[in-house]
Amino acid sequence: MKPTVHELQPLAPEECQRLLAERSIGRVGISVGALPVVLPVNYALLDGDVVVRTGEGTKLDAALAGAVVAFEVDQVDPIYHQGWSVLLQGRATVIADPDDIDRARRLPLRAWAPGARDRYIRIPIEIISGRRIGVVPRDEGDLTCR
Amino acid sequence: MKPTVHELQPLAPEECQRLLAERSIGRVGISVGALPVVLPVNYALLDGDVVVRTGEGTKLDAALAGAVVAFEVDQVDPIYHQGWSVLLQGRATVIADPDDIDRARRLPLRAWAPGARDRYIRIPIEIISGRRIGVVPRDEGDLTCR
Repeated sequence: MKPTVHELQPLAPEECQRLLAERSIGRVGISVGALPVVLPVNYALLDGDVVVRTGEGTKLDAALAGAVVAFEVDQVDPIYHQGWSVLLQGRATVIADPDDIDRARRLPLRAWAPGARDRYIRIPIEIISGRRIGVVPRDEGDLTCR
Repeated sequence: MKPTVHELQPLAPEECQRLLAERSIGRVGISVGALPVVLPVNYALLDGDVVVRTGEGTKLDAALAGAVVAFEVDQVDPIYHQGWSVLLQGRATVIADPDDIDRARRLPLRAWAPGARDRYIRIPIEIISGRRIGVVPRDEGDLTCR
């Protein structure tokens, strides 16, 4: 059997969107008090945007509202290190329109941080990229690809 | 059966360390060109620090070297939304000591981004926190806890 190397293959935006729609747990990347923070959250899609539920007054709520945030979803096999990851960035906003709040309430969303009042944060997909982490046969002559 | 609410219970630093040592895939939170980025990586521990393998010249390598980064590990059940997450922050450095490079080479680490030359990035645990995401019986009178 040939030795193998791991390779990252970029995913088309449509494929990223499809994978994003399949999952329900992602991680938000934000800054809290000048420190980078990554937190797992439950999410759903509304009109193609990522929606996360927070409690008003929580740290997550404060950090998300109005900030450019990263949102990442992945599926990686811990043994074989195969899978994919999708990353998007967008400026998060609090959903304020009453009709949109009603629609957000019907999404399968749970807030993990208890708060005084539920808020729904929308992260529009301004930039999206993805990559498939796979194993490919090693070209023995290609030392740059380890 | 009583209705339930989700609650976040903080984890003691020792428990965070124990959970960190159990896993092999985490997510780094960094800034790349002023944009927040979250990427899954394979990691291992060396003298209690998180070590990640990168390819020299890759975006990940450039972003990690010398930066204060977030590193997150979690295990969350997608159906029941139970599990835990551990978050740490530290200033990442390139491992330069030849003995430490030898020790890092023996870690079960794979670089997912192919690069010209392997580098090992060390993230010391300067701040660590964790929380257990659990389901607890709802106190019907406590409206702040939804």
